[in-house]
Amino acid sequence: MRFKFSSYLYSMNKTRLEAFSDGVIAIIITIMVLELKVPHTTEWNVLKEMIPVFLSYLMSFIYIGIYWGNHHHLLHTTTHVNGAVMWANLHQLFWLSLVPFGTAWMGENNFARNPVILYAILLLGCAIAFYILQQVIMKMHLYKEETEHGLKKAEWKGYVSLAAYIAAIPLAFIDPRISCGLFVIVAIAWFVPERNIEKALNE
Amino acid sequence: MRFKFSSYLYSMNKTRLEAFSDGVIAIIITIMVLELKVPHTTEWNVLKEMIPVFLSYLMSFIYIGIYWGNHHHLLHTTTHVNGAVMWANLHQLFWLSLVPFGTAWMGENNFARNPVILYAILLLGCAIAFYILQQVIMKMHLYKEETEHGLKKAEWKGYVSLAAYIAAIPLAFIDPRISCGLFVIVAIAWFVPERNIEKALNE
Amino acid sequence: MRFKFSSYLYSMNKTRLEAFSDGVIAIIITIMVLELKVPHTTEWNVLKEMIPVFLSYLMSFIYIGIYWGNHHHLLHTTTHVNGAVMWANLHQLFWLSLVPFGTAWMGENNFARNPVILYAILLLGCAIAFYILQQVIMKMHLYKEETEHGLKKAEWKGYVSLAAYIAAIPLAFIDPRISCGLFVIVAIAWFVPERNIEKALNE
Amino acid sequence: MRFKFSSYLYSMNKTRLEAFSDGVIAIIITIMVLELKVPHTTEWNVLKEMIPVFLSYLMSFIYIGIYWGNHHHLLHTTTHVNGAVMWANLHQLFWLSLVPFGTAWMGENNFARNPVILYAILLLGCAIAFYILQQVIMKMHLYKEETEHGLKKAEWKGYVSLAAYIAAIPLAFIDPRISCGLFVIVAIAWFVPERNIEKALNE
Repeated sequence: MRFKFSSYLYSMNKTRLEAFSDGVIAIIITIMVLELKVPHTTEWNVLKEMIPVFLSYLMSFIYIGIYWGNHHHLLHTTTHVNGAVMWANLHQLFWLSLVPFGTAWMGENNFARNPVILYAILLLGCAIAFYILQQVIMKMHLYKEETEHGLKKAEWKGYVSLAAYIAAIPLAFIDPRISCGLFVIVAIAWFVPERNIEKALNE
Repeated sequence: MRFKFSSYLYSMNKTRLEAFSDGVIAIIITIMVLELKVPHTTEWNVLKEMIPVFLSYLMSFIYIGIYWGNHHHLLHTTTHVNGAVMWANLHQLFWLSLVPFGTAWMGENNFARNPVILYAILLLGCAIAFYILQQVIMKMHLYKEETEHGLKKAEWKGYVSLAAYIAAIPLAFIDPRISCGLFVIVAIAWFVPERNIEKALNE
Repeated sequence: MRFKFSSYLYSMNKTRLEAFSDGVIAIIITIMVLELKVPHTTEWNVLKEMIPVFLSYLMSFIYIGIYWGNHHHLLHTTTHVNGAVMWANLHQLFWLSLVPFGTAWMGENNFARNPVILYAILLLGCAIAFYILQQVIMKMHLYKEETEHGLKKAEWKGYVSLAAYIAAIPLAFIDPRISCGLFVIVAIAWFVPERNIEKALNE
Repeated sequence: MRFKFSSYLYSMNKTRLEAFSDGVIAIIITIMVLELKVPHTTEWNVLKEMIPVFLSYLMSFIYIGIYWGNHHHLLHTTTHVNGAVMWANLHQLFWLSLVPFGTAWMGENNFARNPVILYAILLLGCAIAFYILQQVIMKMHLYKEETEHGLKKAEWKGYVSLAAYIAAIPLAFIDPRISCGLFVIVAIAWFVPERNIEKALNE
């Protein structure tokens, strides 16, 4: 009886949390393209001027895509969620929702120092939010031993990413391109190994 | 036979109502970020000027998040919905859809009196709409005793919120910051206790 | 074997068609609110000037809501969909997607004649598209007798709506307010009776 | 045990991949309508001037609709997805997300040469991305013989489309209308035969 009272107010439907998150992430990833402002002339030159905006869009698209994938994997392990997970998830979505702003500021100012620093801070916020979400889910849920091992590995990759984002802030004072290089390397790190490991596991 | 006729035209698929609501709420929560207009220079000062816009975005993000959570919880208790629920739900979504407008007006005018009053009215509208939705669902559905107890508790919190929004309107004439303080307190009230009660129930 | 070939390329997953439609309709209903441009001053007068924009938003919100409900009910009767339904559905969504444009033009020009005529044409297009979708689904699917009776009743309401939208076009030359009155009456016709009939059926 | 570790990090939930893709595609197809800028006067002439923008919207709506349908069909054949499918899918969504930009540039410049060439390149990118997605899914999944036959047919249509998009680029130097004609023919090719074959199969 007590359980039912609790289940009304506090247990969450995992499917709906995923659906809502999918919706928010889908909108975030798509509204960034609105920053590609349509030029008023038809010269190819006007497109050339848009290259920084395009590149920052491309990078953020990949990052948001990585977060969607990781979010997906993380929630895949749980059977249900609670209020704490809901708030940790909203916190994650909040940071992700700021990425389009950072992307646009960075792209429109040709990867200048300050926008690059803000972008690093936003990526850091997203990564910390993901770490919190992971902890909240881990605390709630009893993982099977192997899954925990898997989570540990992903955590390790998460720590390295955090370090890279933090390092990107002072490095932007030397040259913002170094910071951008770090962003690219981290993105590749999340992208490539997954496929390699998967390949290795299937052999 | 008559039931089948009725079921074609009037019974609703709860899943699709939730999916549609999730979509609308996801868009509402995300398009607010478009009000964070990208500055044309790269000075940190331009970001400082955006702080009121950012804070109003943050507050509305939390409020919309709370509504999503409450909406989720409310529909969680029902097994099916009818036409009245559909309309009460659309009414709820309509009020929520006005929040981005109120948020932007308030943020861009640094929490001036009139925009703060409008924001209080919008929150009031959302709260009344939620109350109506709750009543419509309660009338339709026979709740288990404990769930009803849970709903009563949530209702009580709802009444206090309503009172706070109403109080925020005259208080804005003294100082809009008092009204904003009320908004923050209500948001915390919806955020914190839930976790505490949950904790208490799990002990 | 042939069936399987056909089932790969041509049978559709109803759930995904609904999900996609829900997504598109949710975006349509929400982006209309972006037309409520945030005023730059905090006088109440600036909101008064927005009343026509607000009223046209309200009307379109209700219309899109009605279409969502009807779309929901219509697809509720089918167990699967085919390529023809997919295209009829996209055709429906296309007309609905033009409603925000018509709404904004009408609202920003204070319900002037030409925008009201365009709005009538858009509602007519939506209604015809819904009629086509209904026919395509009916042709594909063998309804139970009572459901067909229900569909017939809904069809009758559809015909009256069509007539009203057509009548609204010449009437706008006399006074656009007459046309707007017709739009309101049709909206109420879709809104009210449903509840009454439902009530009657439950007695 | 190893399988479980792998399944946490690398197997994907097909439903969520579809839901996310549906969300992104729904937003792409709908935000294009925002390019139909609301005119400030109520003369019919202002609408006439918007005809190129409208036509480019209509064409892209149909193309995105076709991609949604094909995406749907393609994923319909699989029972699960992996990391490679996830990335191939994001790659597909990335190209699709650029279509609104190309559409707007083409429509606002009355189908001038350069925008038409860009549009051809974007369609080419979308088509190649779909081809890659198809290959990745085919490699992962053992199709039934008949399904493979069906995929082969669809592939053949895909090759012709690719050829048409490539041909559209040099042809735009002669007259961009020839290229646009090719886009229309390809769209019809994806639209019409499907219904015919379906009809034939049902006989």
